[in-house]
Amino acid sequence: MRIVLATLMAMLLIGCADNDSQSTVTQVAQPEEMFKWKLVTTWPKNYPGLGLAPENFASKVAAMSAGRLKIKVYGAGQLVPAFEVFDAVSQGTAEMGHGASYYWTGKAKAAAFFTSVPFGLNAQEMNGWLHYGGGLELWRELYDEFNLVPFAGGNTGVQMAGWFNREINSMEDIKGLKMRIPGMGGDVITRAGGISVTIAGGELYTAMQTGVIDALEWVSPYNDIALGFHQVAKYYYYPGWHEPGPTLELIVNKDALASLPADLQAIVETAARAVNQDMLDEYTARNNEALVSLVETHGVQLRKLPDEVVAELRNISEDMLEELADDSDISRRIAESVKAFQKQATAYHAISEEAYYQARKQK
Amino acid sequence: MRIVLATLMAMLLIGCADNDSQSTVTQVAQPEEMFKWKLVTTWPKNYPGLGLAPENFASKVAAMSAGRLKIKVYGAGQLVPAFEVFDAVSQGTAEMGHGASYYWTGKAKAAAFFTSVPFGLNAQEMNGWLHYGGGLELWRELYDEFNLVPFAGGNTGVQMAGWFNREINSMEDIKGLKMRIPGMGGDVITRAGGISVTIAGGELYTAMQTGVIDALEWVSPYNDIALGFHQVAKYYYYPGWHEPGPTLELIVNKDALASLPADLQAIVETAARAVNQDMLDEYTARNNEALVSLVETHGVQLRKLPDEVVAELRNISEDMLEELADDSDISRRIAESVKAFQKQATAYHAISEEAYYQARKQK
Repeated sequence: MRIVLATLMAMLLIGCADNDSQSTVTQVAQPEEMFKWKLVTTWPKNYPGLGLAPENFASKVAAMSAGRLKIKVYGAGQLVPAFEVFDAVSQGTAEMGHGASYYWTGKAKAAAFFTSVPFGLNAQEMNGWLHYGGGLELWRELYDEFNLVPFAGGNTGVQMAGWFNREINSMEDIKGLKMRIPGMGGDVITRAGGISVTIAGGELYTAMQTGVIDALEWVSPYNDIALGFHQVAKYYYYPGWHEPGPTLELIVNKDALASLPADLQAIVETAARAVNQDMLDEYTARNNEALVSLVETHGVQLRKLPDEVVAELRNISEDMLEELADDSDISRRIAESVKAFQKQATAYHAISEEAYYQARKQK
Repeated sequence: MRIVLATLMAMLLIGCADNDSQSTVTQVAQPEEMFKWKLVTTWPKNYPGLGLAPENFASKVAAMSAGRLKIKVYGAGQLVPAFEVFDAVSQGTAEMGHGASYYWTGKAKAAAFFTSVPFGLNAQEMNGWLHYGGGLELWRELYDEFNLVPFAGGNTGVQMAGWFNREINSMEDIKGLKMRIPGMGGDVITRAGGISVTIAGGELYTAMQTGVIDALEWVSPYNDIALGFHQVAKYYYYPGWHEPGPTLELIVNKDALASLPADLQAIVETAARAVNQDMLDEYTARNNEALVSLVETHGVQLRKLPDEVVAELRNISEDMLEELADDSDISRRIAESVKAFQKQATAYHAISEEAYYQARKQK
C-alpha cells in the first residue's frame, strides 16, 4: 500500500524582467511526482519493427516527461508470457502492454476488428477510421470492462500472403495445405479446406524445413528476411489479403492512466500517436530494401495469388465477418462502423491512392 | 533584451514510503521557465484540415508541457503575410511557422522536393523517406543556412487533378488551357502548352465562374467542397499526378528551439510527428464523405485523365526533375536520395498496397 505524504513547500516568488516576445516567466515551483511503469509485450525483447515500438514509446515518454514517467519494457516471457499481456495489464501487474488486439478474441471476439480483418482496411484507412471515423471510441468501449484503455501503437502496412512450398494455382491447391496462419486468416484457410496450424515464431523455420508445414505467413520482407524463410521455402506470395493494415496496440491500465497528472496523460497519448506512425515509416523504408535483397541477392520467386483464389478467399471472409458481427451488440456496431467506412474509403482510394499507383507507372 | 535572474530556492527533501511497483517518489522541486511562442501560418486562421494542424500542434504542446510552452497560432496576414512565413521564422519574428516547403523555392530551389513533386512519393512513402530514408536529414541541411529546423507537419494524401470546364481527351486539350496550378505542377502544364495562372484561394471561385481560368486544382474533396467549386466547374479530374503526397512543414527558428530545455524540445518533435499523422487520418476520413456528397448529392462528373496524357505529363515531369537536380550539389543529393527510395517503394508497393487495392475488389 502506498502512503502519500502531504508535502510542505517553501514557496518562492521569483521576479523576472521581460522585454522579449520569447518571454521567460518563472513558475512557482511544485514538487513533482515520479512514476515507474512496466510495459509487457507479446514480442521478443527488441524484436525488429514490432518489438522496437514499445522501446521507442518509452524513450519518447521519458524524454518528454524529463524522466517523471519511466517505463521499463519487458520482452515476452520476461515478466509474463506473451499471451498473458492482456490479463497482466487488466489486473495492474503491469501498467502497460504492447501487442495486437486479435490475440484477445478469447476475451472479446470483436477485438479482431482492431488489428486487421481479411480484405479490410489498409494502414492509412485504419488510422482514418480509428481517429476520425469512430473506431477508437468503439475500441475503448470494448476494452472498458477489462479496465483497459487502448491506443493504436504501430502498423506494418499490407503484409505478404506468405511463404509456400506448394504453388497455388487454384482453390484445389489450398485443400490439405498445412499453413501457419493465425487469427481470422487461419479460419478462412480452414474453411477453404486447408489446415491452419499454430506454431511459435522461433520454430517456424524448422517446421518449414522439415515439411511439418507447407506454408506460413509471418510479416513482410523486413521481418521475414531476418528469419531466413527464403532458405526453406520456394515461393513468396502476395498480396497479404488476410492482414492488409495490421494495427498494433498499446494498452494502458485504466486506473494507472487516471493516476497520472494531465500532462503525463497527454504525453502518453501523443507518444502513442507518434509511435503508431513511426512503425509504418520504418516498414515502408525497410520492406523496400529487404525485398530487393530477397529477389536480387537470394533469387526468391515472387508469386501473385491467382485472381480466382483471391475472389474465393474474399467470399469466405465476408461470410465470416457477418458471423462475427452477429456475436454481440457491440460486435454488430463495430462491424457496421468499419463496413461503412470501408465502402467510402474503397471508393475514394480507387480514384486517389490506387489510381495514382497506376498513373505513376503508366507507359 | 531578456534578463535572466539567478534563482534561489529553498530545497525541501520529502520522504516517501513506497511498497508498490507504481512508485511515487517526490522530486526536488525546480523553478520552471515558461515560454510563449508565436506560430505564423500560410493558411487562413482555422482553415479546415491544413489550418487546423498548427492549432492541433499548439494544443498538444500546451497539454504535454502543462502550459510551460504556450504557442499562439496566427493565420495568414494576422502577423505576417502568408508568403513571409519563412523569413519571419528565419529572422525570429516568430518562433515557428506552418506551411509548405515548395512555397520557398525562391530561397532554395531544392525545397520543392520536401512537399511533393509530380509523379513522386505518396504520403506513406514520403513519411518513410523522411524518417527512415535520410530525407529529413537532407531537409535540415538545406534549411540550416536559414536558421530553421523543419519537421513534417501534415499530409493530405494524393490530391485530385482538379476542376475543369474543358474535357481533357488528349494533350491537345492542354494547349492554351488557363489553369490555376502552382509549383512544379504549373511548370509542367506550361511546358505542355497550357497557361499556369497564380490566383489566391479566395478568388478562385469567381475566376472559374467568369471564365478567367478554365481549370484549377486545390486539394481534395474535403477542402474543395467547402469552396463550392462544383457549382462553377463541370468536371472533377483524377488522379493528382502533380501532388501525390503533399507534406506540410512545421519550421522552428533554430535558436528558439535550442533555447528550450530538452524535455520541451522532445515535446515539440513528438507533437509534430503526431500532427503529421493526424492530418492524413482526417483527410482519409473526410475525403470519403465529401466525395460521396459531391457525386451523389451534387452530381459531380468524375473524370479520369487519359493514360496518354498521364504518360506525357510524366515524361515532362521527369525532365524537369533532372533539371532541378542540376541546380546545386544539395539538389543533386536530394534528387538521388528520393529517386532511389522511389524506385524501391514503387516496386514494393506494386505487390503490397497497390496489389491489395486490386485484390479487395477482385470479382
